[in-house]
Amino acid sequence: MIERAAQGSRERLPLGVAARLSRYLQVLTQAKKMGRSTISSQELAEYTHVNPTQIRRDLSGFGKFGKRGVGYNVDALVSQIRKILRTAGRRHNIALFGAGRLGQAIAGSEIFADHGFRVVAVFDVDPDKIGMEVRPGLRVQPYAEMRRVIEEEGVVVGVLAVPSSVAQQVADDLVAAGVRIIFNYSEALLQVPPEVTVHTSSPAVDLLYALYFYLT
Amino acid sequence: MIERAAQGSRERLPLGVAARLSRYLQVLTQAKKMGRSTISSQELAEYTHVNPTQIRRDLSGFGKFGKRGVGYNVDALVSQIRKILRTAGRRHNIALFGAGRLGQAIAGSEIFADHGFRVVAVFDVDPDKIGMEVRPGLRVQPYAEMRRVIEEEGVVVGVLAVPSSVAQQVADDLVAAGVRIIFNYSEALLQVPPEVTVHTSSPAVDLLYALYFYLT
Repeated sequence: MIERAAQGSRERLPLGVAARLSRYLQVLTQAKKMGRSTISSQELAEYTHVNPTQIRRDLSGFGKFGKRGVGYNVDALVSQIRKILRTAGRRHNIALFGAGRLGQAIAGSEIFADHGFRVVAVFDVDPDKIGMEVRPGLRVQPYAEMRRVIEEEGVVVGVLAVPSSVAQQVADDLVAAGVRIIFNYSEALLQVPPEVTVHTSSPAVDLLYALYFYLT
Repeated sequence: MIERAAQGSRERLPLGVAARLSRYLQVLTQAKKMGRSTISSQELAEYTHVNPTQIRRDLSGFGKFGKRGVGYNVDALVSQIRKILRTAGRRHNIALFGAGRLGQAIAGSEIFADHGFRVVAVFDVDPDKIGMEVRPGLRVQPYAEMRRVIEEEGVVVGVLAVPSSVAQQVADDLVAAGVRIIFNYSEALLQVPPEVTVHTSSPAVDLLYALYFYLT
């Protein structure tokens, strides 16, 4: 089924498959940086917590790359997965809201660039933060400019690193500006129209889950 | 099966169930803060991206709380899930490594306290950061003190917010100090003994996954 998708089918991958491919891609990208040329399904399993049988099934469409005892070719697998996830050769622009500590950490992270994302704008309402350079060449802009900048830069994702109390307002403004993916680092439960996707990321939820396995 | 777990079975929950319960708990906790007393499976689905049928199945053991048309009682569900995840009435101590921007954001976050976690120590090697107050009453300590502090404070989780280049060294030291859960915010692929669990969290992976749905 993954193979069919790679061959240009317009079918949507099931949610679980897309999530797992993203995880494999992250590990493979890092393995590549560390100079590795092959990786086994067992190693992929250790780093992603997906079981090896599931991994072999997901990647069975790439049979020619997965040699028993040798493992998968890292370069080949990276380009295949990128193609399937449609991130190959594209650049997706992100606008970040909130230039506090979390916002600064996100803006300064290199991890986005590895996967074809780029933080092209950072907004805040705090006059002390406006003009601050969060990354060479990237300065905090006034929130009032968000609509214009989003249009000019072709922003497709809004990332909220703002206090929970203002997250809904920023989400409303993003929706009005035409942004359809919101990545929410605040704790707020956001109300958005059905065509908009909100992803809430929380370190505490992941920790709860990890601890469950420690405690039982 | 979830009901059986709640009744004190020593069986481990399947990975997927534990992950979903953690997500429900995060949404329910926030709903409670916002003054909500009930929540429907449809709403839980919107906030967690788990489908409503799956949610009703997961929570079927709590039948008495889930009234058709009214939804689940938020308070009752929070305490049931906490009991199942064994986080009820316990406090789990976390040590944080790296007092850079991400480390500061994590240390200052209130989200951990909501779920029974507490950042009890922050370490760094940078003399300029040592002594800095990252939260009222919590100051950055020298890395050399890590072993003693971990033992004294009963730390069960180590969180790495350090550069990738030093992550393996910190992981080795954590393992030597007896810590069995490592939460890795760096990009490094860590090598640890089988009894140690590493969870790598990456905003980029979640974004890739979100974008996949936008792009297809």
